[in-house]
Amino acid sequence: MLMIPGPTPVPETVLLAMAKHPIGHRSGEFSQIIAETNENLKWLFQTKNHVLTLAASGTGTIEAAIINFLSAGDRVIVGSNGKFGERWVQIAKAYGLDVQIVSAEWGVPLNPDDIKKELEADTDKQIKAVIITHSETSTGVLNDLETINKHVKAHGEALIIVDAVTSLGSYNIPVDEWGLDVIGSGSQKGFMLPPGMGFVTASDKAWAAYEKATLPKFYLDLGKYKKAADKDSTPFTPPVNLYFGMKVALEMMRKEGLEKIFARHTRHKEAARAAMKALGLELFAPDSHASPAITSVVPKSVDVEKIRSIMKNRFDIALAGGQDHYKGKMFRMGHLGFVSDRDVLCAISALEATLREMGHKSPGSGVEAASDRLRQG
Amino acid sequence: MLMIPGPTPVPETVLLAMAKHPIGHRSGEFSQIIAETNENLKWLFQTKNHVLTLAASGTGTIEAAIINFLSAGDRVIVGSNGKFGERWVQIAKAYGLDVQIVSAEWGVPLNPDDIKKELEADTDKQIKAVIITHSETSTGVLNDLETINKHVKAHGEALIIVDAVTSLGSYNIPVDEWGLDVIGSGSQKGFMLPPGMGFVTASDKAWAAYEKATLPKFYLDLGKYKKAADKDSTPFTPPVNLYFGMKVALEMMRKEGLEKIFARHTRHKEAARAAMKALGLELFAPDSHASPAITSVVPKSVDVEKIRSIMKNRFDIALAGGQDHYKGKMFRMGHLGFVSDRDVLCAISALEATLREMGHKSPGSGVEAASDRLRQG
Repeated sequence: MLMIPGPTPVPETVLLAMAKHPIGHRSGEFSQIIAETNENLKWLFQTKNHVLTLAASGTGTIEAAIINFLSAGDRVIVGSNGKFGERWVQIAKAYGLDVQIVSAEWGVPLNPDDIKKELEADTDKQIKAVIITHSETSTGVLNDLETINKHVKAHGEALIIVDAVTSLGSYNIPVDEWGLDVIGSGSQKGFMLPPGMGFVTASDKAWAAYEKATLPKFYLDLGKYKKAADKDSTPFTPPVNLYFGMKVALEMMRKEGLEKIFARHTRHKEAARAAMKALGLELFAPDSHASPAITSVVPKSVDVEKIRSIMKNRFDIALAGGQDHYKGKMFRMGHLGFVSDRDVLCAISALEATLREMGHKSPGSGVEAASDRLRQG
Repeated sequence: MLMIPGPTPVPETVLLAMAKHPIGHRSGEFSQIIAETNENLKWLFQTKNHVLTLAASGTGTIEAAIINFLSAGDRVIVGSNGKFGERWVQIAKAYGLDVQIVSAEWGVPLNPDDIKKELEADTDKQIKAVIITHSETSTGVLNDLETINKHVKAHGEALIIVDAVTSLGSYNIPVDEWGLDVIGSGSQKGFMLPPGMGFVTASDKAWAAYEKATLPKFYLDLGKYKKAADKDSTPFTPPVNLYFGMKVALEMMRKEGLEKIFARHTRHKEAARAAMKALGLELFAPDSHASPAITSVVPKSVDVEKIRSIMKNRFDIALAGGQDHYKGKMFRMGHLGFVSDRDVLCAISALEATLREMGHKSPGSGVEAASDRLRQG
């Protein structure tokens, strides 16, 4: 049982669809699948623009989201308050961008005012992009994308480029309504699919910037994907069997509906957090900025790796550990994608049993706290 | 029934393995799969070095094979005698390399002497790499890699970078014995897998060049994959379910053995070519340089698209068409990966029936010619 922030659980119907024999990717039959999945991805991304599908991990996809719209020496702001923010800094530097980091400690949300200040000071409009991780998977912090985006819009020139790898499909991101320029995500997150595909969409303003952008690219050249998408095709051989799965997964999501999907993730987030508090385990991200996809826990008085080990060995439930300097100090419970109330309750009850086995004295019942929240819908 | 040069047929055991629930890619269980598949890929690539697995198409993989070992302005020779050779020229130019094209007409093999001449003239050793497409999928020509490689070795400085996308696993390429520097391939070809993964391996000499190479890269940075492979891991989230399939496919290949695999592809190539000749259909590539993966046919007196359409509609057999300026003038029959004698005979008999239906007068029997060749083993 996967309660990690990716790979996430995959429905059996999706798995079985993937077990079908591949078909030619230049056939009319496959073109229809491309057209239909693109249409459903547009619905999920709340955009009129193509959502381009790449055979790549989330990192490859966010790299594409960055490099297609910029040129060497361009000034960019990168928000960094976790492992993935730090990674986008590395990518921006690897391509010779002039990177200005706006940071916060791990576990602390980015301060939109810090970004506002930099944008307002840039009176000659040299800042070409603001790169933001929405849901920081390494910490469980949800940055305030809506407010940051307003500041970027006020600047006028800069694009906003968003890593929505663990937020798209779990949190309401009205891409066109907010005017988000470039937004990327990955299949093994909110999409109920195994890893292997990434998704990215771009605004008209971003495509205008693409025309002038000169960073070198070929496989990650989104212009090629866009041109192919116009003809319900792909520029390079697509991962055909993952597309079979995607077709089914998106149909399921469409049937559930955006509102219900987002409400489910909010409910699971709040149930998980209520349970952790009842169990006396310290939460890493503040309530005001907690990711709907993942709950990070930094228990002071219990051994994190022992929790993960008992959860895995006795209950076959995988929890993620901390990353980098939080290794051994944090566990992360994913509740993203194909996760039901039962799954959350099951994970919490196993965690409660684990703590009991370890002799940890919990102030209250995790199951009670979680079920109270779940019951409210 | 897929008789195209990728996606190729996939065994049911492989498909069903892919339908298993994903597991955490940082788990011990998945590390074992990485270790085992890497070991079996080394066997298949006939190398002691890691074979790195990327979530990318063949193009993304060959891009990685090129950009990791070079710097902007480096002089490179690119062999170009088909669509893929032309693509590597585009990639080399996109990254600002100083590209010298050694070309031949589509359907004509590269002349190793042309490359030898350029390398011998380069007395101050400015040529940093020779980039060669081994089996040119667009034409069915197999370039003489062994001879070209000898000329590169005589030069001493240049690396040889090989697109072995449709030759690895169908033709004997003793990577270490020949001293090939960088060699890339793709899952949906000789590996009996769906598309979505690419494979690349590099020599010690190439890794030394990597240290000095400055082309920008992050997701395609092979150094990151190598470092992770040392610890049976991957730098970015791998396509977990495709790995499940790969584990099974490589076990099957190992059981069959390299010699038998190569003999089977040679047999199918020769059977297909004998049949085309008996049916009075003109072959595009010469016998001396025919790909073991794909047979390209350019019939003078029959409508190619009608052949493909009848084959598809009446017999449910997919043949590939021609690419670029050979659209409508060529069909291509793949016999690569999980293909049996029965499959080849079946495709030939359907082609024979199709030609009969079209009123084409064949000088002889395709089935007779193919079965005579198949019988010889």
